[in-house]
Order: sequence, then C-alpha cells, then structure tokens
Amino acid sequence: MYSDASGIFKDGFFRFLEILKGDHVFQTNISSFNSSLIIKGIHVVIVSPSDELQHGVDESYKLSVPMLGDPSYAYIEAKTVYGALHALETFSQVCYFNHSSRVIEIRQAPWIIFDEPRFSYRGLLIDTSRHFLPVPVIKKVIDSMTFAKLNVLHWHIVDEESFPLEIPSYPKLWNGAYSSSERYSMAQAAEIVRQVIIMHLFGYAQRRGIHVLAEIDAPGHAKSWGIGYPSLWPSINCTQPLDVSNDFTFKVIDGILSDISKIFKYRFVHLGGDEVNTSCWTSTPHVSNWLKEQGLNGDEAYRYFVLKAQEIALSYGYKIVNWEETFVNFGSKLSRETVIHHWLRGGVVQQAVAAGFQCIVSNQESWYLDNVGTTWKTFYANEPLFNIRKPQQKALVMGGEVCMWGERVDGSDIEQTIWPRAAAAAERLWTPYDKVAKDTTEVTERLAHFRCLLNQRGVAAAPLTGWGRAAPMEPGSCYKQ
Amino acid sequence: MYSDASGIFKDGFFRFLEILKGDHVFQTNISSFNSSLIIKGIHVVIVSPSDELQHGVDESYKLSVPMLGDPSYAYIEAKTVYGALHALETFSQVCYFNHSSRVIEIRQAPWIIFDEPRFSYRGLLIDTSRHFLPVPVIKKVIDSMTFAKLNVLHWHIVDEESFPLEIPSYPKLWNGAYSSSERYSMAQAAEIVRQVIIMHLFGYAQRRGIHVLAEIDAPGHAKSWGIGYPSLWPSINCTQPLDVSNDFTFKVIDGILSDISKIFKYRFVHLGGDEVNTSCWTSTPHVSNWLKEQGLNGDEAYRYFVLKAQEIALSYGYKIVNWEETFVNFGSKLSRETVIHHWLRGGVVQQAVAAGFQCIVSNQESWYLDNVGTTWKTFYANEPLFNIRKPQQKALVMGGEVCMWGERVDGSDIEQTIWPRAAAAAERLWTPYDKVAKDTTEVTERLAHFRCLLNQRGVAAAPLTGWGRAAPMEPGSCYKQ
Repeated sequence: MYSDASGIFKDGFFRFLEILKGDHVFQTNISSFNSSLIIKGIHVVIVSPSDELQHGVDESYKLSVPMLGDPSYAYIEAKTVYGALHALETFSQVCYFNHSSRVIEIRQAPWIIFDEPRFSYRGLLIDTSRHFLPVPVIKKVIDSMTFAKLNVLHWHIVDEESFPLEIPSYPKLWNGAYSSSERYSMAQAAEIVRQVIIMHLFGYAQRRGIHVLAEIDAPGHAKSWGIGYPSLWPSINCTQPLDVSNDFTFKVIDGILSDISKIFKYRFVHLGGDEVNTSCWTSTPHVSNWLKEQGLNGDEAYRYFVLKAQEIALSYGYKIVNWEETFVNFGSKLSRETVIHHWLRGGVVQQAVAAGFQCIVSNQESWYLDNVGTTWKTFYANEPLFNIRKPQQKALVMGGEVCMWGERVDGSDIEQTIWPRAAAAAERLWTPYDKVAKDTTEVTERLAHFRCLLNQRGVAAAPLTGWGRAAPMEPGSCYKQ
Repeated sequence: MYSDASGIFKDGFFRFLEILKGDHVFQTNISSFNSSLIIKGIHVVIVSPSDELQHGVDESYKLSVPMLGDPSYAYIEAKTVYGALHALETFSQVCYFNHSSRVIEIRQAPWIIFDEPRFSYRGLLIDTSRHFLPVPVIKKVIDSMTFAKLNVLHWHIVDEESFPLEIPSYPKLWNGAYSSSERYSMAQAAEIVRQVIIMHLFGYAQRRGIHVLAEIDAPGHAKSWGIGYPSLWPSINCTQPLDVSNDFTFKVIDGILSDISKIFKYRFVHLGGDEVNTSCWTSTPHVSNWLKEQGLNGDEAYRYFVLKAQEIALSYGYKIVNWEETFVNFGSKLSRETVIHHWLRGGVVQQAVAAGFQCIVSNQESWYLDNVGTTWKTFYANEPLFNIRKPQQKALVMGGEVCMWGERVDGSDIEQTIWPRAAAAAERLWTPYDKVAKDTTEVTERLAHFRCLLNQRGVAAAPLTGWGRAAPMEPGSCYKQ
C-alpha cells in the first residue's frame, strides 16, 4: 500500500481543496444542513506503494460520491497515486459553489465513476526557443494540463533561434540564449521536471503526474548551438545542419544528453531530425571533402548523423522519439527503440506502425495550436487511429500531442492559444473511442463549461467562437462564447 | 510610529521576497562573497501610525541602497506604509538574478531615491458587466497594478448587459447576472476591497495600497437592473434609462448605495450618468404623464435623476464621480462634491476646472485600452494638464485613468490588453512633468524591460510592437519586441 512518503497525494489534495474553495467566501452555518447530505470526507485507497512516474504508469481510478448516507464519505480507489490525482481532478469538476446556499454542491450526485485513459501518451508541446517562456508560465501550463488530464509536456527546448538551457558540460551553449535573463539553469529545469537537489523530492511536473519529454532537435534547427561554439557550424555563412564531419559535434551531443539525462527521467528523449536540408554540407569544402572520404552523399550523411545521435541517446538509457522525416528517409535503419512522431505527411502513421514502430500523432492540419485558424472542432475530430485496422498496429500508437510552436507565442498569449483547443484533443485522447462524440456539436456545451472553469481557475482560455486565441466577439456570458 | 498591527507591511515584504526569489534556484555559497558586498537587510522607518488608506494618502518614500558597507543595510523611509510598499516595489525592480553568479544582484548601486507621485489618482477601469471577470482575474489585475504604481481600481460593476453583484437589500438585482456562477457575493466584494468580516483585517486591494472606486452607472446603462425588478424599466419594450417617475427606482439606488457603502470605503463613488437618451421617458405614457405633472422635459428629468442620485450618495458620506455629460448638460447644478470624469469631448477638463470642479482624465482617443489600435506611445504622450495653465486649476485635476471596457475582454485577454499600455500611462501619472520623456522613443527600452518583468512575474503583458494585445510578430527576445 501507498505511504505517500513523498507527499505527492497530500500536495494534490491541498491543491484540490484550494480549487474547491476558489475565491468564494463561506458564510453558512453548516449545522443548518441535514447531516446525511454532507460529505464528511474522502476515503482514498492507493494500491501501489511506488510513486515512480514512468511511461505507461496506471492512471485508472474509481470515484464514488454518495447522494445520501450517514456517515457520507466519497471514495477513491486507484492503482497508483497518479490515478488518484485524476480522481481528485474529476471530483473537483462535479463540484460547484452555489451562490444562494453559499456551500459547495455536487452536481447530479450520486456518482460512480470508473475511468482510465484510452492512450498512455497525451501530450502538449511547448517551444522555448522561438520565444523564452518564463518559469512561472511553464508551471502554469503544467497546472492547466492536469485540468484536462494531459500527461506529457514535450519541451522543445532549443532550436535555431535560441539556446536557453544551461548545459554544464558545454557552458558556452548558453551563449545562444536571447539574453542573460532569458535562460534556464539546469537547477531550474530540475525543479520543473523533478527535483534532484534533495533526493526523493520530486519536481513540479512529476508531482502533478506530468512526464516531461526533452527535445534536442538536431542536426537541423540547431543554429543557436554555434553562437558559443562556432565550430559546430559547417561555416560562419552556412550554419545548419550541424557539422556532420566534426567529432566535436557528437561530443557536444553526448555532453548534452549526459547532462539532461540527470534531470529528464522520462523513458524517452526527442532527438528531432526534421527539416534537414543538407546543402550546407555538400557546399562547404571541408564537409564535402569529408563526405567524399566517407563515400556518403547528403542523404546518407543525414542518416549517419541521426543514427549516431540515436546511439548516444541509447547509451544513456533513453528510448528515442524522432520526427517522421527520419522514418520516411531511412526507416528500416532506425533503432527499433524509435518512436515516430508524425506531423507532416498523410499516411506516415499507417506506414510506421505497419513497419512495427511506435507512433505519436501530431498531424499539423489538426493538432498544431499555432495554426490559429484551426478550430476546436477540428482538434476534437482528429482520430489518431484513423485508417489503422489491425489491433497490433493500433497498439503501436502511443497517443497524440498538440503542438504549441512558439514563433508567435510568448508569455503574453500562450494560455489562450493552447486553451480551450487543447482540451478538445485531450478528450479525444482520454475517452474510449465508442464514447467520443461523433457530432462535435454535442461537445460545445461541455467544452464551453470547461473553458469557463479554466477562467475561474485563472487560466486565460479563449472563447470557443472564432479562431484560436480570438477575443470574445461581443458582450455575453462565458458559457455562451 | 507605525506598528504594522494589521500586518500590511509584513505581507508586502513577503511578496517582495517572493518576487525577488522568483523561480530561481540558488546554489551559491554566500561565504564566498566579500561580506561588504552583501545587503544584510533593510531598515524600514514608517512615520505614520495609521494604515488608513484614503484618497490623498502620502505615497512618498525614500530608498537608499549602499554599494559598499560593513554592515550593509538598505534603508526605506516613508510617511505611510503605502509609501513603504512603493519603496519595496522599486527595490524589486533594481534587483535581478545573475545566472552566472547565481545570486540576486542590484543594478547600478548605489541608489538614493526620493520618489512620490505627481497625481494622487492613477486609475484603471475594469468592466464586469460586459463580461464577468472571475475573482482570481481581478486579484491578478490588482497585483499587476502595484508593479506600475497605479493606485485606483475603478470597478465598473454593473451595466446594461449584466448585474453580477449581490445587493442584499434588493436581492433580485442579482437575477441580472449572466448565470448563477457569474456572480460576486457581497462577501467576495468585501474580500477584494477590504475585509469587513473580521474587523481590521483589510481586503486584498487595500493591503496593496489600491483604492477601489465602485461605479453604479445610472440612469442609462442600467437595463440589467430590471431583470429582477421589471418596474425599474419604463416599460418592457423600453428599458432604459431607469424609470425616473417611479419612487421605487430611487429606493433601489438607496439600497444599493447603502449596501456598497459598507464595503467600498473609498471617499468617492462613481454614479455614471453618461449616454442618457431620454426618448424612453418621453415616449412611455406613464412616464411622460409624470413629466408633464412635474413640468419637466426630458433633459430636465435627466438632471432631476442625476441630482437625486447624488443626494443619496452624499447621504452615505460619499463624494461623487460622474461622467462628463452631467457637467456638460447642467454643470452648475451639480453638487460641489462632484468630480467630473472626462472621456469624450475635447475641452471639457479645461471648462470643468475653470468652473471649480475636480477632474479625472480618461480621454478615449488616448486612454481607452479597448481601442486596441491605440499604441503605447499615444498612452504615454497623453498629458492630463494639457491646456491648463493656472496653478489652482491644475490642482483640481486629481489624475487620470486608463479604461479597460469589457465588450471584447474577458478572463482570456484582459491582461495583455491592459499591459504594457497601461504602464505607459502610469509613468505619465507618476513622474514629475519635467522628467516625463518628451520623445517617446526614449521610453521604448525601459517599457520593453518592464513588459518582460511582467512576463517573468506571470502577467501576460503583450509586446510593444503592433497593436494592443497583438501576438509577437516573429521569434525573438522579449526585450526587442
């Protein structure tokens, strides 16, 4: 049985109480109520003694709330503490403050709920390279994910525009940050992901049941690496992809993966590998000479790079996620430990699972949050198992992820660009297929309700009407917009 | 001397420490620093024993931060605790976390600062009728106001679209709320403004030095009152302005002012009085009959209404703020206790101060935040004393206010629509006239810095480039956008 030695459940329970309490003021004499109508407490049973948060951890729970009873206790049963946290979240969403009676009431009791996610990977990507996101912003994103039961924060840490994360092994990488204050120290990353300064004191995300998938996108999207170490560039005038001919490039990748593996304990690391244009290699003399020596053309060198980066990641115990181009270009050569992250080309998921690879679905036309013209209905209607029929192939789709690319998103607009559209995808990823709404108009009312709930919790979720992050069109109730 | 019996300074000091600490992780062995470089503490002297927050309260402070010393203490001296809170805010803004040394450093020490506001009224209007704003959103607005040293939250509580506030004397007014959850109980209002449930425990705004100016806008903009009490309408088909012929109308106004005067202790109440079209009165038989009996035309009845509402407010000890139309239409008849709130017509401020009235400046072409096309430069350049030359007339301008009307603003977009543009006006309202920048381009860098500071504190302030609340145009550093 679970002992809650790390205090994860206790913390979750206090967050639950804070959410229930909200900013209401309670002025009711509780003794004026029939005692059989009052919930006196919650009995909680958590079976597993372990609070290890790893991919595939059991997230199921049972929640029952009686209508009448003496004494009346709600009841939560879960295999793990992370299932129990989901139960508290669900409980909080059936409670509401009645302004007339001035007490918190439970909607439509009694409740007997058995619940578990359809997919084990329900992700949200954030991008801290195109714009730096202050730590309080990231923490608030993590909090809001728990409200929609998303469970993986895919942290696209670095890209060509900036390199905000400290890498102790190669400290000049940090020179690629936008400024001296637009930086994350490794200790801050640890505090976000999981606390390592004091052992067994887990970090912000883990305490909320959120995995953090670190992405180091190479060899393309890596120009910022060369600000501190210009020799990573093929040349000063041709800076991407990273110089494949230079051993130092792979030493730096080794250093980065060594450093982040101390913090990011999720089973997977994301190595990117997308949008690689090899013309910088073939046009830069010392790289092109190296290609000739090795007998490689540009595409083969791209493969060489990706596989070598995979080997390094495997040596640190990681499984790997790569963007789909790696599979499209040289699928059978990839490590069998590779998860293919689909974003671009129709049919890739079907091909990848047919080839025996696991997949994550983030098709850009439906699940890219930066496409503000994509409405919540499109997010909702996107089915990760589309056109996949064999059960063993279906099982290879770990789940899906909505992507909040950062070109036009920073601390000023990230919340309303993510929400409520990410919640539409979250329902798709959680709910059993036969309970997913076939007609999205059935969803409007409950999604509007969820968006108002987010606003009440201080999350700047946008109206459902209009495009992503659009301002409300006119005066009116939150529930109608 | 001040005893801080209410804990206002202590709370402010803990907020200051939280802001300084931010989300940084400190890993430095402090003994490795030269002890004369370390600030060991802050000596604080507050002269006045009273922590009453009233209009015109002394907000001045002195802050000195030594460069070297043994021992080294910073020093704050203020007439009131509210000046001391400003000193802490200023102190927090000269500190920054150095990611290399991993300590908080003070920029450009030593500092010796004498500071006080140019205007005693530095306001921000929020509108909870067009869209309900959840209490956490209002609290965050209050917090962010303190960062820019704004000091009056003008709460435009009700309007024609909805009536969210509980009025115990006339409980059906609450029927005009958008929904059962888009409501503020009087106890919540008290908690926002000043706590009255336990005496001497002040509310959220007061503890931060923020006055709350309640607005009850009548007789126009009041359609929502009649949802619960239809007899307040001239007729079911002609619902505005409130029925001037019905004694019940003034009983309700009396009840509202009686109830709110228990909570809203600022010296002023705002009675609106703007945009009154009397055609509903002249076209509705029973009202038009009453007008004939009284020998009043529409305009005279409007005056009758405004003056009667003023009398009621005066009877509860309030001074009055009215929108400028009341002055333009029947200026000399207004109570001498009236403050004229300018928003519409050029020249009104000059005429009002010439007539001896106090004024608040909110000219819509410069200080309406809902005009998203108005840039921060226009906010900055707006001079409240424009075209006023006589010192005794200048002294009648209490200050100014930026207005965040709520037609297209709710919990999803209010922060980035307010900030950073409100901060440009805040500098105008605080800084001595001869130190205000004559060329706004001098301001760009420090305003960009302040916007990034807001983002770091979790406030969704928008980029300076582009319109109000526009998304960032492209990737880049916060400090350049």
